[in-house]
Amino acid sequence: MLEALVKQNNTKLILVVLDGIGGLPVEDGKTELELAHTPNLDKLAKVSALGMHIPVDIGITPGSGPGHLGLFGYNPAEHNIGRGILEALGLGLEVRDTDVAIRANYATVRYEQGRPIVVDRRAGRIPTEENRRITQKLKENIRKIGDVEVLIESGMEHRCAIVFRFPEPLEEGSDMVTDTDPQKEGLEALEPKALTPQAKKVAEVAKEFVRLAAEILKEEEKANYLLLRGFSQKPKIKNFEERFGLRACAIAVYPMYRGLASLVGMQVVKVEGGIQEELQKLEELYKDYDYFFLHIKKTDSYGEDGNYKGKVRVIEEFDEALPSILSLNPDVLVITGDHSTPSVLKGHSWHPVPVLLKSPYVLGGTSQRFTEKEALKGELGIFPAYKLINLMLAHSLRLAKYGA
Amino acid sequence: MLEALVKQNNTKLILVVLDGIGGLPVEDGKTELELAHTPNLDKLAKVSALGMHIPVDIGITPGSGPGHLGLFGYNPAEHNIGRGILEALGLGLEVRDTDVAIRANYATVRYEQGRPIVVDRRAGRIPTEENRRITQKLKENIRKIGDVEVLIESGMEHRCAIVFRFPEPLEEGSDMVTDTDPQKEGLEALEPKALTPQAKKVAEVAKEFVRLAAEILKEEEKANYLLLRGFSQKPKIKNFEERFGLRACAIAVYPMYRGLASLVGMQVVKVEGGIQEELQKLEELYKDYDYFFLHIKKTDSYGEDGNYKGKVRVIEEFDEALPSILSLNPDVLVITGDHSTPSVLKGHSWHPVPVLLKSPYVLGGTSQRFTEKEALKGELGIFPAYKLINLMLAHSLRLAKYGA
Repeated sequence: MLEALVKQNNTKLILVVLDGIGGLPVEDGKTELELAHTPNLDKLAKVSALGMHIPVDIGITPGSGPGHLGLFGYNPAEHNIGRGILEALGLGLEVRDTDVAIRANYATVRYEQGRPIVVDRRAGRIPTEENRRITQKLKENIRKIGDVEVLIESGMEHRCAIVFRFPEPLEEGSDMVTDTDPQKEGLEALEPKALTPQAKKVAEVAKEFVRLAAEILKEEEKANYLLLRGFSQKPKIKNFEERFGLRACAIAVYPMYRGLASLVGMQVVKVEGGIQEELQKLEELYKDYDYFFLHIKKTDSYGEDGNYKGKVRVIEEFDEALPSILSLNPDVLVITGDHSTPSVLKGHSWHPVPVLLKSPYVLGGTSQRFTEKEALKGELGIFPAYKLINLMLAHSLRLAKYGA
Repeated sequence: MLEALVKQNNTKLILVVLDGIGGLPVEDGKTELELAHTPNLDKLAKVSALGMHIPVDIGITPGSGPGHLGLFGYNPAEHNIGRGILEALGLGLEVRDTDVAIRANYATVRYEQGRPIVVDRRAGRIPTEENRRITQKLKENIRKIGDVEVLIESGMEHRCAIVFRFPEPLEEGSDMVTDTDPQKEGLEALEPKALTPQAKKVAEVAKEFVRLAAEILKEEEKANYLLLRGFSQKPKIKNFEERFGLRACAIAVYPMYRGLASLVGMQVVKVEGGIQEELQKLEELYKDYDYFFLHIKKTDSYGEDGNYKGKVRVIEEFDEALPSILSLNPDVLVITGDHSTPSVLKGHSWHPVPVLLKSPYVLGGTSQRFTEKEALKGELGIFPAYKLINLMLAHSLRLAKYGA
């Protein structure tokens, strides 16, 4: 129904994602948001619409993929992003509809009668620099397999991502290839097997790739093999601009978030630095787009480390930057997170996430601050994250009336 | 599930719809409901269950049709009422399952080699009295086309509604006839075309009707043609009494709301005047029905005009009338709106609508007044409008237990 009602105007919409913003009490019964000194957010909260969103479903802890898809207006229960794709995006590899992406582990094998037996699935968690050196070697030696381009990117420790780029767009089902990781040490590394006819050519390329890599790595002491997991294609997702009529731009420091935005067709802008640099980009590009997704990572990183003081500090840093966003005078400004990352849990959680929506058409006056408890008092109630786009479009008067 | 649980008793249920009741701050940060002096509503709110309903979906602004269907217990996302039907109902034409309803514009055309070229799609927005005179002329000269009865009713300015009444109920798809309005001046008026085999006979009648009307109107200076749009049949909607076991009566001054109630099979009562006259009817008929839908229009009309003081006055007028409703001692009384019409938006909006439910089985004590913000604190939370019927049935003890 929503898409049929979309209409155009000149409004500007900004979505700020403070990654993992929601929290739980950490000190004096207060959450990170409650502990932070945030005069600008407080002031804005008093005149805004507040509420909580549920990223995926009640009780469900989302990864970054589902967390962001929801905020972009895609029901994450209906759209699945493969592990290989996320890994590739996270390491800055672009993925196209000609591609299959794979996450890979460097591993240690010994050979018994020529068969590779896995001794260490993580190659002793080799240092990241070691990974870079080895990956460079692979890159130089495996550029193509037949007419298939091979892209490799180092991750942390033993991890890397691989993309096979075929000359033509791949049919659906081309990524149905089995993992080669036997999941247990002492077992033989498996061969990649196609589960569908469409996946055959991918499995063949993978098999040849594993053989070549083993050959190139055979002299390495630890990382003498590559195990492949999570073969995946770019998901079929309807374009954001086509659905919502918004020319959209993603501003993010970390590649995975730019990658997620690019999956739905947003233009992505690479930024080096922190919040200040991101805001500078926002100002530069403000006239060129209708919708901006601004991603702030460090709230989540500190939450994952259990460092609540770090998380509080990033919230305060954002609070200081808020006036420069407000000075752009966007028609609709939303501040929220993709999920909660309570420092006490040192990881993503299932808790609803505070949402603040600024527009001329709110009741306001329900909440004193942008915190979990004050957001609960707000006029937006508790709602599914993927309905946030409905609210953003409604508040920018970009939706026609439904029925007469 | 609901319908299978319905049981009978002698309770009385009243639904009062203050059309477009929800608002936004207009003066001193207060909404129309907050500004109004409403001692009776305040008293009732303190001992009632409050909450907010979402008419169609988060962010979606409903027309009157979807707004009311929801309150009657029909998911408006699943039931579509055609434009022609609404127009006809709004002008007081009854629609039956033998009918196709159309909204029509008087227009000005000039003829080029016998072909009607649209010069003004709205015939210069002729005065309503002019419309009445011309419509009367059409009525007198086109009563039947073959065995099809033709009903015509004047609207405002250049608008009117037409109903073709066939001798037999029409098959589904009979209303799939294209508009004759070319949507742009300088183009030829189109012929009505059937998009389905079932629609053929309707298209033929429409073609003949347009020809006859052009003949009759040919001497008119401005309104010398009729353009047809929104061909529609009565929607297939399951009967209200069959679904919920409630003998239902609609009391409304404006024809469209009586029409909407009649679409779901309610008995409709025509009332001239205002709230007082409606309440008098309610008392008269109180013993004859189980469920009463009482429609109060002016809150919406003033909201649409941006006249918040007018809207406040109607709310106060209703407050004065409230004791006489309470004196009937209904088992369940609900006071709400079909959607919000904030004076600042001068039109319907997507904002959730306050709901007050009086019954012996509420918590109460959550809210001090019947306002948007106080309703947010209530025990009913924020819920889809079409679930209101569940609450009304439950609170009148008309639902059996689900499962053992």
